[in-house]
Amino acid sequence: MKERIVFVNDEFINETEAKVSIFDRGFLFADAVYEVTAIIDGKILEWDGHITRLKRSLKELDIKMPIETNKLLDIHYKLIDKNNLTEGLIYLQISRGEDDRSFDYPDSNVKPTIVLFTQVKSLQESNLSKNGMKVISVPDIRWARRDIKTVQLLAPSMCKMMAKKSNKDDAWMVQDGFVTEGTSNNAHIITKDNVLVTRNLSNDILAGVTRRSILKYAKEAQIKVEERPFTIEEAKNASEAFVSSATTFIGPVVEIDNKIIGNGKPGKQSLRLREIYIGESMKEAL
Amino acid sequence: MKERIVFVNDEFINETEAKVSIFDRGFLFADAVYEVTAIIDGKILEWDGHITRLKRSLKELDIKMPIETNKLLDIHYKLIDKNNLTEGLIYLQISRGEDDRSFDYPDSNVKPTIVLFTQVKSLQESNLSKNGMKVISVPDIRWARRDIKTVQLLAPSMCKMMAKKSNKDDAWMVQDGFVTEGTSNNAHIITKDNVLVTRNLSNDILAGVTRRSILKYAKEAQIKVEERPFTIEEAKNASEAFVSSATTFIGPVVEIDNKIIGNGKPGKQSLRLREIYIGESMKEAL
Repeated sequence: MKERIVFVNDEFINETEAKVSIFDRGFLFADAVYEVTAIIDGKILEWDGHITRLKRSLKELDIKMPIETNKLLDIHYKLIDKNNLTEGLIYLQISRGEDDRSFDYPDSNVKPTIVLFTQVKSLQESNLSKNGMKVISVPDIRWARRDIKTVQLLAPSMCKMMAKKSNKDDAWMVQDGFVTEGTSNNAHIITKDNVLVTRNLSNDILAGVTRRSILKYAKEAQIKVEERPFTIEEAKNASEAFVSSATTFIGPVVEIDNKIIGNGKPGKQSLRLREIYIGESMKEAL
Repeated sequence: MKERIVFVNDEFINETEAKVSIFDRGFLFADAVYEVTAIIDGKILEWDGHITRLKRSLKELDIKMPIETNKLLDIHYKLIDKNNLTEGLIYLQISRGEDDRSFDYPDSNVKPTIVLFTQVKSLQESNLSKNGMKVISVPDIRWARRDIKTVQLLAPSMCKMMAKKSNKDDAWMVQDGFVTEGTSNNAHIITKDNVLVTRNLSNDILAGVTRRSILKYAKEAQIKVEERPFTIEEAKNASEAFVSSATTFIGPVVEIDNKIIGNGKPGKQSLRLREIYIGESMKEAL
């Protein structure tokens, strides 16, 4: 397989040479934020949404945005070009930078570390959207600021492995009896009354860029939307269930804790919203 | 300042060349554990306690211990030697290793990353032990598995900065009304009835190596020990308060949320325990 060209701190380099200091706070303290954008036909989906959220994450952590938005966009294009990326994703991580280890943040003259790389992935045609996902419910053991998109991802990674060990695709995390999110996506249901229910924004969940667009398109398609917490029990009795994320768009959920949802096939409304989402976001892709 | 020699994956190298891949899961997922050991007179304190905890942390995360204990001890000695380290600490981090980014753990043939470096620090004579520490209380926003010593340290780092911004030394984190820990230490009080109160072990706190030894020495010194949660209110009314960690040993706390503890000076029992701790642990130092 051909090696990727990635971006690390001002340089485009071969992935095998792409390194950061062991003193980078991303490595020592998980003191870093990230974004993942979908690429279709070499174009970037939802650029504005991701950049807006990136800036917010950095601000919440008192990290100064270390690069102009235009330059960052240009790096995305160069990575698409250098790697002949047609469909897949671009991962972007910014950490507070490199300094001798201390719980205190370093002086403001420390330069944040910027890392970007591509991943080839089939997004429009995916097995998960064809066959649907099976999920289990697990306790949400993450920290309390999930609205900040940090690399403190060990907990969701552990939950994902719990799902894998049960031969399922993903886990829905539950806190105080209510679903928060999937391990790397927002969770939604469509009730038998045709109401799209999705947890309201707070510190408990990430403000999904795809989630926001889907709610907009759902409303335009005359689907009623309720933003409130829901239980696993309510989800099990729903007509449809699905997750949303930058790279799955909409992933229909066909089973929750061994209970079949609907007829066990991806829901019609979910697939319809998926099509609308891809069509509409492609129109605005950069 | 002379550059340090550090250890990264089988190699002793100059700190400026010490790097890990951007695909290391320690950098992308905070999928890594660590230990910090104190060095006095070129000797390692509490080796057994730290190695035992390291192995437990790795086991909890399904990471295979990638190196023999003897070899790890040898690396510690070589680092002490190469850096002429008399007093300070050795930091050790093991991450799950390098793999293309995915929430799933990589195949078991992926080799964990091993990183070690030294830090010079005055441990026996420290300003904090002379003057005592001032702490504020903050909500504990960390994840639910604090018994595993992972590098998901952004939350305590944020809390430390909140303390700094209030011109204090550290923060005590509070959950459901009870103190859990300091940002990088265990929290203790000594009541007016001369009872050492410290939170009992659970998933809520790290099983401090220093904490364990101090409880043992306290019992030997006829101080009554109660392992149970305590509130900030109880701490404010205590006779003494202190933190324990591998590199502060015992750090007397003289102020909590602007309330002076005792006479505002490091407590006598705390200082006595500190002396006993250093003396006894030096006897067993390797």
